[in-house]
Amino acid sequence: MTDKPACRFYLTACKFVRLSYIFRPSRKMITQTEFPLRAYPRGIHLVTSEILSAIGTLPEKGMLNLLIKHTSAALALNENADPNVRRDLNEIFNRLVPENAPYYIHTFEGADDMPAHAKSVLVGPSLTIPVTNGRLNLGTWQGIYLCEFRNHGGPRRVVATIIS
Amino acid sequence: MTDKPACRFYLTACKFVRLSYIFRPSRKMITQTEFPLRAYPRGIHLVTSEILSAIGTLPEKGMLNLLIKHTSAALALNENADPNVRRDLNEIFNRLVPENAPYYIHTFEGADDMPAHAKSVLVGPSLTIPVTNGRLNLGTWQGIYLCEFRNHGGPRRVVATIIS
Amino acid sequence: MTDKPACRFYLTACKFVRLSYIFRPSRKMITQTEFPLRAYPRGIHLVTSEILSAIGTLPEKGMLNLLIKHTSAALALNENADPNVRRDLNEIFNRLVPENAPYYIHTFEGADDMPAHAKSVLVGPSLTIPVTNGRLNLGTWQGIYLCEFRNHGGPRRVVATIIS
Repeated sequence: MTDKPACRFYLTACKFVRLSYIFRPSRKMITQTEFPLRAYPRGIHLVTSEILSAIGTLPEKGMLNLLIKHTSAALALNENADPNVRRDLNEIFNRLVPENAPYYIHTFEGADDMPAHAKSVLVGPSLTIPVTNGRLNLGTWQGIYLCEFRNHGGPRRVVATIIS
Repeated sequence: MTDKPACRFYLTACKFVRLSYIFRPSRKMITQTEFPLRAYPRGIHLVTSEILSAIGTLPEKGMLNLLIKHTSAALALNENADPNVRRDLNEIFNRLVPENAPYYIHTFEGADDMPAHAKSVLVGPSLTIPVTNGRLNLGTWQGIYLCEFRNHGGPRRVVATIIS
Repeated sequence: MTDKPACRFYLTACKFVRLSYIFRPSRKMITQTEFPLRAYPRGIHLVTSEILSAIGTLPEKGMLNLLIKHTSAALALNENADPNVRRDLNEIFNRLVPENAPYYIHTFEGADDMPAHAKSVLVGPSLTIPVTNGRLNLGTWQGIYLCEFRNHGGPRRVVATIIS
């Protein structure tokens, strides 16, 4: 019976190790999900809640990165209240990068395609947002925009990477 | 006294576990701070040192994400030397998205508001910067810009998330 | 010989601890590399494979941040197939921010310099891309663009930070 106390110590050690995994402050995780946003017409659309439901529970503290896997749409953060901001933004973008410019060569995918690529580069395909107390740490007036620059872009795929 | 050597082994094991927590290379941390940038007039402003003092000590190696919690201002990285770059940038932005365009609908917050939203979407609300040897790993000529697009934007809140 | 079983338990405990380091899902790492991209002429260039070879093996799951350490070039994600998209993009940018605007003050570095700063702020100096199954998790048509806005920008330095 010489191994009885040793056995107890061994079990205690195992418990210590396991508990340390649960309680240590430095346990970091990376989780990823990929999901489609439903098809939207050309324009700027508020998709904060659609994205939050796709992602599920957020960690207490961390960072969320969203990437849209397309070259003619973009993600942005802006005013979540007055929908006219989204309407005006779309008009501004249409004037910044007009359709049918005489110098375009990449025209075979439609008049809306080359401007959509340029707008996508200007706005950017990704967002990185802090997560605090289990929520996106955004300003009161900030919401997530899907910028759909094609007339018929179809559903758009997004990858969410959460570091916590 | 059969448990004496076992006890010693148990203590050694505990020590091993604890030491491994201190020295293991993969101990990762996320720290967050939120702070205001003082009110700046409309224009582009170099705020690298204001941001660095708000954040405090940087880790040896990691990544810093900054998010401005507003929809009519932005953060950018650009030339930290000649202040005329900031002056010209502001002029360029004012011409890219003019005030009082006849097609704007969102006008009730002032002539500078809708253009400020558009510029904020174009420049972007956040920066992600590598941290190396305890410092921001920027190019020699790069500094952090607060792009204040409102005439009287007031203090702007920023969240800093550091992953190390 | 009372310590023999204890010794065995100790060794088992050590093994358990070590194995847990190898297999535990939360082992996080930050790695950084800094490298030059070769000199490109003014224009938009597809540099996905040049960047991937500079970075080396990617982790199973994580996030890649790329920062270009310059104020007159930028990084973007867009169409990796038809090179005319890059050609048209360059033309669009040249019209968005023209050279020799009469109101520029920062002119002593050449006619291409101030527009390059503005384009760099519009496109942005960094990209954050999810890594999944050891590969960049990009859309089928997405590739990494070096946007070289100077006539003779020379080699450009990039910092890659990988969080896994």
